[in-house]
Amino acid sequence: MSRMVYFFGGGKADGKASMKNLLGGKGANLAEMAGHKDLKLPVPPGFTITTEVCTYYYKNKNKYPKALKEQVEKNLKKIEALMGRNFGDADNPLLVSVRSGARKSMPGMMETVLNVGLTERTLKGLIKITQNERFAYDSYRRLIMMYSDVVMEKAAGIESEEGMGVRKQLERLMSEAKKRKGVTNDTELDAQDLKKLCVKFKNKVKEVLNKDFPDDPYEQLWNAIGAVFSSWKGKRAVSYRRIENIPDEWGTAVNVQTMVFGNIGDDSATGVAFTRNPANGENKFYGEYLVNAQGEDVVAGIRTPAPLNAYSTNEQNGNLPTLEKSMPKLYRQLCGIRGGLEKHYHDMQDIEFTIEKDKLYMLQTRVGKRNGIAAVKMAVSMLKEKLIDKKVAVMRVTPEQLDELLHPIIDPKVELKTRPLAKGLPAGPGGATGQIVFSAEEAVEWSKDKKPVILLREETNPEDVEGMRVAQAILTARGGMTSHAALVARGWGKCCIVGCGSLLIDPVKKEVSIDGRTFKKGDWFSLNGTRGYVYEGQLPMLQSGQQNESLDALLKTCDSLRRLKIRTNADTPQDALRARQFGAEGIGLFRTEHMFYGKGSEEPLFKLRKMIVSKTVDERKTALDELYKHVKSDIKGTLEAMDGLPVTIRLIDPPLHEFVPHQASGMDSLARSLGISIEELEKRAANLRETNPMMGHRGVRLGITYPEVTEMQIRAVLESAAELIKSGKKVLPEIMIPVVCDKNELIKQKEIMDKVYSEVLKKYNIKKIPYLFGTMMEIPRATLLAGDIAQVAEFFSFGTNDLTQMGFGFSRDDIGGFLPEYLKENILFADPFQTIDQDGIGELIKFGIQRGRKTRKKLKIGICGEHGGEPKSIEFCHKVGMDYVSCSPFRVPIARLAAAQAALKDKK
Amino acid sequence: MSRMVYFFGGGKADGKASMKNLLGGKGANLAEMAGHKDLKLPVPPGFTITTEVCTYYYKNKNKYPKALKEQVEKNLKKIEALMGRNFGDADNPLLVSVRSGARKSMPGMMETVLNVGLTERTLKGLIKITQNERFAYDSYRRLIMMYSDVVMEKAAGIESEEGMGVRKQLERLMSEAKKRKGVTNDTELDAQDLKKLCVKFKNKVKEVLNKDFPDDPYEQLWNAIGAVFSSWKGKRAVSYRRIENIPDEWGTAVNVQTMVFGNIGDDSATGVAFTRNPANGENKFYGEYLVNAQGEDVVAGIRTPAPLNAYSTNEQNGNLPTLEKSMPKLYRQLCGIRGGLEKHYHDMQDIEFTIEKDKLYMLQTRVGKRNGIAAVKMAVSMLKEKLIDKKVAVMRVTPEQLDELLHPIIDPKVELKTRPLAKGLPAGPGGATGQIVFSAEEAVEWSKDKKPVILLREETNPEDVEGMRVAQAILTARGGMTSHAALVARGWGKCCIVGCGSLLIDPVKKEVSIDGRTFKKGDWFSLNGTRGYVYEGQLPMLQSGQQNESLDALLKTCDSLRRLKIRTNADTPQDALRARQFGAEGIGLFRTEHMFYGKGSEEPLFKLRKMIVSKTVDERKTALDELYKHVKSDIKGTLEAMDGLPVTIRLIDPPLHEFVPHQASGMDSLARSLGISIEELEKRAANLRETNPMMGHRGVRLGITYPEVTEMQIRAVLESAAELIKSGKKVLPEIMIPVVCDKNELIKQKEIMDKVYSEVLKKYNIKKIPYLFGTMMEIPRATLLAGDIAQVAEFFSFGTNDLTQMGFGFSRDDIGGFLPEYLKENILFADPFQTIDQDGIGELIKFGIQRGRKTRKKLKIGICGEHGGEPKSIEFCHKVGMDYVSCSPFRVPIARLAAAQAALKDKK
Repeated sequence: MSRMVYFFGGGKADGKASMKNLLGGKGANLAEMAGHKDLKLPVPPGFTITTEVCTYYYKNKNKYPKALKEQVEKNLKKIEALMGRNFGDADNPLLVSVRSGARKSMPGMMETVLNVGLTERTLKGLIKITQNERFAYDSYRRLIMMYSDVVMEKAAGIESEEGMGVRKQLERLMSEAKKRKGVTNDTELDAQDLKKLCVKFKNKVKEVLNKDFPDDPYEQLWNAIGAVFSSWKGKRAVSYRRIENIPDEWGTAVNVQTMVFGNIGDDSATGVAFTRNPANGENKFYGEYLVNAQGEDVVAGIRTPAPLNAYSTNEQNGNLPTLEKSMPKLYRQLCGIRGGLEKHYHDMQDIEFTIEKDKLYMLQTRVGKRNGIAAVKMAVSMLKEKLIDKKVAVMRVTPEQLDELLHPIIDPKVELKTRPLAKGLPAGPGGATGQIVFSAEEAVEWSKDKKPVILLREETNPEDVEGMRVAQAILTARGGMTSHAALVARGWGKCCIVGCGSLLIDPVKKEVSIDGRTFKKGDWFSLNGTRGYVYEGQLPMLQSGQQNESLDALLKTCDSLRRLKIRTNADTPQDALRARQFGAEGIGLFRTEHMFYGKGSEEPLFKLRKMIVSKTVDERKTALDELYKHVKSDIKGTLEAMDGLPVTIRLIDPPLHEFVPHQASGMDSLARSLGISIEELEKRAANLRETNPMMGHRGVRLGITYPEVTEMQIRAVLESAAELIKSGKKVLPEIMIPVVCDKNELIKQKEIMDKVYSEVLKKYNIKKIPYLFGTMMEIPRATLLAGDIAQVAEFFSFGTNDLTQMGFGFSRDDIGGFLPEYLKENILFADPFQTIDQDGIGELIKFGIQRGRKTRKKLKIGICGEHGGEPKSIEFCHKVGMDYVSCSPFRVPIARLAAAQAALKDKK
Repeated sequence: MSRMVYFFGGGKADGKASMKNLLGGKGANLAEMAGHKDLKLPVPPGFTITTEVCTYYYKNKNKYPKALKEQVEKNLKKIEALMGRNFGDADNPLLVSVRSGARKSMPGMMETVLNVGLTERTLKGLIKITQNERFAYDSYRRLIMMYSDVVMEKAAGIESEEGMGVRKQLERLMSEAKKRKGVTNDTELDAQDLKKLCVKFKNKVKEVLNKDFPDDPYEQLWNAIGAVFSSWKGKRAVSYRRIENIPDEWGTAVNVQTMVFGNIGDDSATGVAFTRNPANGENKFYGEYLVNAQGEDVVAGIRTPAPLNAYSTNEQNGNLPTLEKSMPKLYRQLCGIRGGLEKHYHDMQDIEFTIEKDKLYMLQTRVGKRNGIAAVKMAVSMLKEKLIDKKVAVMRVTPEQLDELLHPIIDPKVELKTRPLAKGLPAGPGGATGQIVFSAEEAVEWSKDKKPVILLREETNPEDVEGMRVAQAILTARGGMTSHAALVARGWGKCCIVGCGSLLIDPVKKEVSIDGRTFKKGDWFSLNGTRGYVYEGQLPMLQSGQQNESLDALLKTCDSLRRLKIRTNADTPQDALRARQFGAEGIGLFRTEHMFYGKGSEEPLFKLRKMIVSKTVDERKTALDELYKHVKSDIKGTLEAMDGLPVTIRLIDPPLHEFVPHQASGMDSLARSLGISIEELEKRAANLRETNPMMGHRGVRLGITYPEVTEMQIRAVLESAAELIKSGKKVLPEIMIPVVCDKNELIKQKEIMDKVYSEVLKKYNIKKIPYLFGTMMEIPRATLLAGDIAQVAEFFSFGTNDLTQMGFGFSRDDIGGFLPEYLKENILFADPFQTIDQDGIGELIKFGIQRGRKTRKKLKIGICGEHGGEPKSIEFCHKVGMDYVSCSPFRVPIARLAAAQAALKDKK
């Protein structure tokens, strides 16, 4: 560590962009801007103290390496030479800013001190060179406020009571001054006011901290540097690093840079700009500026900034002069810089600039943030412009940005400022706003009058489905991510929040109370189903941008790069068609039980209930015969819609007791139809009750105990296929057995498969029906015994929902009691139901794949849990060698993007 | 396969005992008896056709190898020479038996034909040499019956309707003959009756099977051999092999042996004997015999057999002459053989003998079956006699035999003949008989009158505990192996059957109906809690033989051989003391929640409920303070009772909702005590309801969300320890965190541990409390991340109940719906809750151990699930390198034995 300080400015720099680890993001970027041959931007000169110094500082009891002092002073001299000003000079003083800059941006987490070098002595010099006494005293009072707070109080570790810190007390003095003068804005205090205030400030500092505000510029400088290093271990920074997984050892760099002033006259200004429009992605220079102002004034929003150019005008600023017109020469200089920056960085840049007495300084350039629409548009047009290649274009858009594009959402600007009323589990994506109702009937009624409604229920059940369909969104107090409401909503891509425990619903009074406040039927709520937030009132919505040429172009580029196939979870011909439009290449999960979760008619559910409560094989066979046509109809339609693409049909999976009727009327007609007494029916229903249904009598276990149930379903698949083949269609059904833990279960089910297969061939007089026979991998034991299981199964589909439930011992319906605490305390870093737990569950998946493929080399492997639509999980699926992922239709575009990104990362 | 036939007899034999695979068990044993230099027993000469011939026979479409015929005839000649009789000879005919004999005994599963060689011609010779016409015709009619059934019908694959088989028809003819004569016993038919019957038999055979009964001795012989080979593939044999895991490829041998006759006069006899008493293990010759009878007559039980000697006399046979007195010379010869056999086989032998005209023939010797008491006694005394070494002694007793010794059981002889009324889950071991009652109150009331009761309930809950305590046994219709009833009963070692689904209880009428039959309060039931069988009526019981010197000696021998330590699961000082008496070397599982499962007082449960429904930290802390003394009292007592032996204390584990009150009265007083309304209490209780409580808010998850709950428990442990140390006692508490899935959970709990530890040291002014901090391994993910977890945990204890539940996705409370079918269909070969599933769950255990020890070399590892008392699982625990197993106090002796046997098997 011989070199501890890196200089930049005057068209030269010691560092460069690639030295982020040493110089921090900010420092490396300043060096790049100032020194790179293609840029050589007019950056205010300065220097960066390396992160190694920070590490040394903490390892050596907050002491600096010996050589640091000399290196800092040498570089300060360089600045002085370039600027023609001197640090501490009474006539022509140099002021500097002291800023942090870690390897990775930690916005707002660390400290900054501006105007360092301003003392009683240099104050006079500043007045002289700026001819602006008010500016000088304003700068001085800013320095006192910041320095006393950041350096003298915080970095010294002084703790004060709430509201008694030095900064608060100085702010109070300033308020008093304004009050006395009868003004409201800081800007209305004149030079004399500020001058007096500076005296009061220094007295107050002495009073509160028992120390004089230092009047030595070097003392200010070194203490400010120390304060920035100290802020690396500040509370906020430490907890931010824990959340973002930033190692403590990285440390921060410190940037000492010339202060330039946009607020010393009408020939000065400050502004921010984007090299392209961050809101829609158009390739137009977009920005705003303020004459005679400092950077923070732009951000503070007290004065309305003026537009950079005609393109940047809007309702608010339309009457203000553009920079293009008011300072045409400087605007042209800026335009030139814009082009150079995009060519150099190959991306849209967000820049900050200051004009000091007609001289342009570039304060910062960084990759500009953008919304989803803009991200897609920019990626695609930069690809066209050959500014980037297709790999970069694909990596340029995050899956979250794509998601933003695919659903209506609450306007993020408004949402950011709104406090949620309650928080639940994010069960259905996107945003919605509507009037709350408390029953499915009300929902149907109100929506006939075109009123947008949000259906609010304790829990939903199949009897609520009509109301759920017409609602803008569904909100439940109970239930988890696998509850009825969650399953239905996800299938429809509808906004839904479940398990929102703070809702206390009174369905009789038609009221809900939340934290002591009461809301009535008809009150407006807005929901963010992607994050699980419930808001009061009718927040403004942004509509989705699904029909978008750029999106199509981007996704086609993704398709050319990915290895993973993308399938969809779909249960009806309509879903299947929609998913194909989204680009699905097959169905990875068709649930035979889907229809019982609610379609218009109650008929199939009624018949299912008959089957469930049947006691003898004969009773059950009769009920199954009645069910047959319902099951077959959607299977046939779906196979036809997919036109030869693979369709994985999962045999009945959930515990039967889920379907037992709740309402007395249902019990009644069911008992009558079965010719048994209500008591007998209730007894049978009670027998289906389970303590832990998720680990109970479900999936293949039903197929083993009631082989006729398996037989009916397989017959529905094969007869559908046979009829389509007969009429010249292509089909590829894949029959999938759920909840398997042992090879022998599959052998038993395969026996039924083989029997039905030959019966169907005979019945339709055909030679062959193409099909595969496979299994879910969702029980931990199955992944361990995958080698045996692959002797029978021709494909595996990982059911990572159940695998996560059983691998963690977390019931998804019951995690509400502890998982939030686990995430808050960083016991787990992510909700394993949102993203695959790669350490634990991931290892089970790897076992399943390795052992399965050892037995059957070409075993087809996919995933059909909800993780199949989650980008990090998709990347994992790619890495471990799956053949496809399957997700809900609305996630297919995101999966296409994520799969392409996974393939690109893999190649690196 | 040049040699296909092995001869034995006349003091010589081609084979020997070690050739079981080739000659079958019986054949090898006959060879050993006849030919071994130390034995040379008077075995009726014969020969064995090898199992290889059987295999050849099946591989070659039921044909024999060419050379077989010649080898059989050559060996038949040898027999003829030894016996001085000839096969098929009209004057002095040789008769033979043809018997199966597989590598492993398959009792009653295969066929036998006796008296082969008896034809119209040889019949006369038999009459001549035996001077007993009745005997000869009786032998002939037996031959016709057996041969027509076994050879002509079964082996030929002829199927007849129920009751229309040839044997049934012949039996009917015989019944008619007896009826005509007005007699009831076969023995009352005289020579002429039998002669006529033989004619009728042959006509009937011709009529039914459309074939003559063969009159050629060789035809009889070859067909009988073929019939025995065929019976290897008979239905019974095949299904027996599937159950016993005997490969089909082994095949059976066929033994052809001279017929000797114990029924040709008063100088003839037949008998069975044991070289020691199989009922109590005494080293006394024990047996019985019948003069003028064949072996089957002894078994048939028509005549009362006479005692072998004075020692063998009992109430029934006391008046009959002993063999010792009636045939002293032969008795002495038998005694000599007895000694030789024990010396040769080093074990108690079960022998069959026949005396034909004052000449002794040994028909069979095999290791004698014995009951538990005898097994232990024999092992210990043979060890003393130096007949066996201590390794053999330990291997000589099966864990099942030991179990038999430790509990009262239903007399097995009676149970074998009794049909169970119902079957449930075997939740508490041993047998019991009593009168059924339907409520805990009735149980208490009746038992005051000294009436033995069986408490019959839908399910039990903590309010039933008094009634459960006084009952002989507990029987429930619902609930699984982790239900309240099961947990309580196992802790007490009480007979208990749960989840007996066919019970339809009407608690109001005080009736139970089972398969349409109704039983009332006061009716007698008998229960086998080891197997889960419920019987009607009062079956006779055998009392346990716990106080037994031999047992102590055996277990001490075990202790000297085993590597695994044996701990116990105990929750009270009383349990701890009892377990130490059984030989426990520590406590592997002390559950802090135990007291709430029912001890006399309701007080702790009430306080627990207060804690559970507390809503604020303050409410909860108040409730915890009240609970503290209850938790501490038993911990302290237990630590003291164990006197420095390790005591693993598991912090609270079950889902809280298990403890929510069911009865209105309980709700009432609870609400009052909390100062809240019943509605509020009900709301709070409803919030605790979980969909899948086994995977819900339990174990460490409670400790994370309510750190004060962890703190209270740890404080109870450490303050107990501190107080004992202060009073000069030794303690070694091990604090165990349940339901852990991640290292970070442990880190959080350890922080509390460390904090309380230093507080307690300070409070008691002591320097150190020895303790360990560890975790359960019961979540699949934990076993995979065991390497990380071992950074914090100083010991692991495998909770194989939960690991099996989650690894299989089997809720133990809900397996009743499918597991019986899985076992019946051989999808699983054993109930994984009874014995560890070594393929799947076993691999998770191995991961846990390997990864844990990789991080922490001396990691202490044990098991505290119920598998810890199951012999096969104990063997597995030994193999994978655990340090100890822990089981219920009553299983400790069995675990000591099983651990020793595991160590011995390991050395092999």
